[in-house]
Amino acid sequence: MSLTLQISRRIAKVHFPQLPAGASAMAKVAIRDFFACALAGSRTPVAARILAYAQRHESPGPAPIIGVPGLRLAPAVAAWLNGTLGHALDYDDVNSVAVAHTSAALVPAILALAETRRASGKDVITAYAVGFELIVQLGRRLNPALYEHGWHSTLTLGALGAAAAAGKILRLSPEKLCHALGIASSFAAGTRQNFGTMTKPLHAGNAARAGVTAALLAADGFTADPDILGAGYGLGKILSPGRPKDLSALAGKWGRPWELVASGIAIKKYPCCAGNHSSIDAMMRLATEHYLKAEQVKRITCEVPALVLGILLRHRPRTASEARFSLEFAMAVAVLDRAAGLRQYTDRRVQDPRVQRLLLKVMTRELPKVMQKRLGGGGLNGARVTVELKGGEKIQAEAGAARGHPGEPLREAEHWAKFQECAAGILPVARAAKLFQELSRLEVISELKYIAGDLELKGS
Amino acid sequence: MSLTLQISRRIAKVHFPQLPAGASAMAKVAIRDFFACALAGSRTPVAARILAYAQRHESPGPAPIIGVPGLRLAPAVAAWLNGTLGHALDYDDVNSVAVAHTSAALVPAILALAETRRASGKDVITAYAVGFELIVQLGRRLNPALYEHGWHSTLTLGALGAAAAAGKILRLSPEKLCHALGIASSFAAGTRQNFGTMTKPLHAGNAARAGVTAALLAADGFTADPDILGAGYGLGKILSPGRPKDLSALAGKWGRPWELVASGIAIKKYPCCAGNHSSIDAMMRLATEHYLKAEQVKRITCEVPALVLGILLRHRPRTASEARFSLEFAMAVAVLDRAAGLRQYTDRRVQDPRVQRLLLKVMTRELPKVMQKRLGGGGLNGARVTVELKGGEKIQAEAGAARGHPGEPLREAEHWAKFQECAAGILPVARAAKLFQELSRLEVISELKYIAGDLELKGS
Repeated sequence: MSLTLQISRRIAKVHFPQLPAGASAMAKVAIRDFFACALAGSRTPVAARILAYAQRHESPGPAPIIGVPGLRLAPAVAAWLNGTLGHALDYDDVNSVAVAHTSAALVPAILALAETRRASGKDVITAYAVGFELIVQLGRRLNPALYEHGWHSTLTLGALGAAAAAGKILRLSPEKLCHALGIASSFAAGTRQNFGTMTKPLHAGNAARAGVTAALLAADGFTADPDILGAGYGLGKILSPGRPKDLSALAGKWGRPWELVASGIAIKKYPCCAGNHSSIDAMMRLATEHYLKAEQVKRITCEVPALVLGILLRHRPRTASEARFSLEFAMAVAVLDRAAGLRQYTDRRVQDPRVQRLLLKVMTRELPKVMQKRLGGGGLNGARVTVELKGGEKIQAEAGAARGHPGEPLREAEHWAKFQECAAGILPVARAAKLFQELSRLEVISELKYIAGDLELKGS
Repeated sequence: MSLTLQISRRIAKVHFPQLPAGASAMAKVAIRDFFACALAGSRTPVAARILAYAQRHESPGPAPIIGVPGLRLAPAVAAWLNGTLGHALDYDDVNSVAVAHTSAALVPAILALAETRRASGKDVITAYAVGFELIVQLGRRLNPALYEHGWHSTLTLGALGAAAAAGKILRLSPEKLCHALGIASSFAAGTRQNFGTMTKPLHAGNAARAGVTAALLAADGFTADPDILGAGYGLGKILSPGRPKDLSALAGKWGRPWELVASGIAIKKYPCCAGNHSSIDAMMRLATEHYLKAEQVKRITCEVPALVLGILLRHRPRTASEARFSLEFAMAVAVLDRAAGLRQYTDRRVQDPRVQRLLLKVMTRELPKVMQKRLGGGGLNGARVTVELKGGEKIQAEAGAARGHPGEPLREAEHWAKFQECAAGILPVARAAKLFQELSRLEVISELKYIAGDLELKGS
C-alpha cells in the first residue's frame, strides 16, 4: 500500500473518541484563539482589500466570513478570506516544528464546509487534529531545510494540512483523500520574501483555499498523482532543496503520539512574529523591574537565535505590517508603553517620532546556540536583552520559551483578555463572551451555525 | 533601481510597434493555436469536472469560457478554466527553454481581462510578448535545474508570466507591476509528479488564475515584496534547488532579442507530451516507407534524451491522460494507425487490446547526448527509432527537431488542419474558418468581443 494511502486511511478512520484528551483540548484552545485573531484581522487594510476583491469578483455561497455579518461566500472563497483575516495581524498561533501558522490554514478550511456538511464540534476538532498532524509530521521531516530555504510553511505545508482537514469534513474515502493531497501539492508555494507585506497573510488564505478546492475537486473525481507523499517527484523531493527526504516514517509515527500533544501550539500573547516574543517578555520584565524610561536608554542589544535574525528583517519599519517583523519596534514600544498589543501595532504608533527615535538605539545579534539551548523553548524562542543606560550601567534579562509557548501556556484569563481585545469594537462584550464560552465547549456542540457575523453554536 | 522595478518599467513601457515583426507573428500563431486546443479541451473529462465545480462554486462575471457558449465567469475563474481546458489534451504549444506551456498560462489570463478593458488585438499580442519574455528569461536562468528538480514550469514560471501579461492588459504602473509579480510568486508551485493526471492541465489554469488574481489585487493596492526578482528570498533563491541563481542579467537581456524570436514556440502536431514528438515523426516515416504492419514487429526501441525518459513515465497506460506521457503508446498507434491525433488519444483506443499488445514490444533507452546534439532541436527533441522485424531485419529512422518546432514550423495548411480537427463537433466549419481567419489577423482587430462560444472579432 502506498505511503499516501496509508496516511489517508488513518485520516479517514480516526474518530473523536480516539484522540487523547490533551490533543482535543489543545485543538480547542487554538480554534477559539483563531476566531479572536480573525475578528481583529477583519478590520485591517489587507482585509479591506481582499473583501473588496471578493465582493466584486467572487461568488456568494453558504460559508460565513468572520467579523463581517451577513456576508456569505462560496466555500473556497470564504476559506481564502478567513485565512487571510486570521493571519492579518500575525496574532494567530504557531507550531514551532513546522514553523507554520496551523490554525490560519486549517480552521478556515474546516469552517468553509462544516456548516453545510452539518459537522459537529467533535468533527471540527477531529478534522483539525488530522490536518495539524499532517502539517507537523511533514515539518518534522522537511524542516529546518524547508523553512531555511525560504518557504513559508504556513502555505507550503498548510495547503496539504488544509486538504486533509477539508477532506475529513467531506468524509472523503481514503482513495479520494489521496487525490485531494495530490491536487493540494500543486498549490504548495509561498516565499518568506513576502513577510512584512499583505501577501504574508494571503499565504494562510491560499493554503485554506487550496485545501477546500482540492477536497471538493477530489470529491467529484478530479485526479492527481495518488502517492504524493511517497512518489519520486512527490513532496519529499520537490520541497527538499538538497537531497530528497524520505517521508516513509510518517506511517509509523502518525499519531504516536499526536503532534497536538507532542509539539503543541504556541498561542500568541503579542500581535507580531513569534520571533519577537521572548525578547518582549524579557524587556517587559526589565522595564517593569527597573522603572525603565526611554530617556535613560543609550543602547538596547537583543540577542536572538540566528533563525530569528533571518526573519525579522524590517529594521526600520514605517507601517504596522513591517513592524510585526521588527525587533527594534518591539523593544521600543515595550519600553515606551510597557505593552506590545493591538494598540501598539498601528501605522500611527509605528510612525510616532518617539518610537522612531528609540528604535534606532536597538541592535540585534545572534544568541549563541548553547545559550538558546540552556534557556529552552527551541525554535524561535530564547533571548537575552541588555540595556545600556546613559549613566553607563547595564541591565540584562533573559527569556526562554515565550509566554503562550506550549511549555508556558497562557492562563484562561489571559485567553479571555486577548479575545476581548480582538473583539473590541466588533462584537458587544456580552456577545464576545458567549462566543468565547461556546468555543470553549466546542466538543459538546452538535452543529455549527453562524449568525449575523457572530457564531451561534447550538447546544446538543 | 531594483531589478524588479527595471523589468516592470520595460513591461509597462513597451508598445506593439516596438515588437519585431517576427515576435508578433510568432505570438499570433501561438494565440490562434491555443484557441484550437482549448476548443478541443472543452470536451474532456477534466473540463467536465472543472466546469461542474465552477458552475457550483464560482462567480458569474464578464469573461468567456472557450467552447462553452453563453457561460461567462469572473475573470480569475475564467482564466482558471480556460487554462485548464487549453492544456487538457497536452496539444498546446511549448517553449523549450522554459520547458513551459506558455500560451496555456498566458492567453487565458489575457482573455479574462481583455474584453472589459477594451484591449485591441495589438494590446493582446503585446501582453503576450511581455508575459512570454518573463517566463523564458526566467527559464534561461533557472533551467535545467528548476525542471529537473521536479517543478512544472508551466505553473512555477507561468504564474509570473501571467501576472505580467494581466498587469499589462490592466495598464498597471511599474510599481504596481512589482507587487503583482510578488503576489504571483506565492502561487508558483506545481510538481511534475502530477503529470498524467487531471492536475497537470490544472497547473496551466492555476498559473493563469494566479496572474489575474495578482494583477487585480495589485491594481487595488494589495502589497507584496516589491523586488521578488532580486531579493534574498526571491525567485532566484526559492526556485533554485542548489545555490541561489543571480537573475540580474534579466535587465540587460530583456528583449535583446525578444525570446519570441530567439527561442520561439513549438506548435504541437500531436496531442501528447512534446517528448514523444521526434519519435513519432521518425516512426511515421519508417512505417510509411516500409509499409510496416503490427504483425511484423518483434521489438521497437526508442532512444530519446534522458530528460524525456524522466517525463514519459507512463509505460503501461490505461487512459488517454496517461497515454500522453507514454512513448510506448505513441509508437503503437503510429504503427497501427499511421497517426497520433485526437482520435488516437481516447480512453477507448488506449484500452484496445491490439494497442495494448503492441505497446508491450516498445523499449525506451537514453539517446547519447552527442547524438542528440548532432540531430539538433535540443530540449525534448531528438530520437532514434529502431524496429526489429520478426524476420530478423532491423529498420531505423532518426529525427531531430520535431515538426512544429520553431526550426521546423508547420505549414499554414497544417495549422488549419489542426484547428479543424480541434473544432470538429464544437463549431460549424464555417464558423471555425472565420475564427481561424480573424485570429490570423489579430493585429488589425480593434476590440475583442466574444459571442456565443465563438470569438467574434470586430474589424477596425
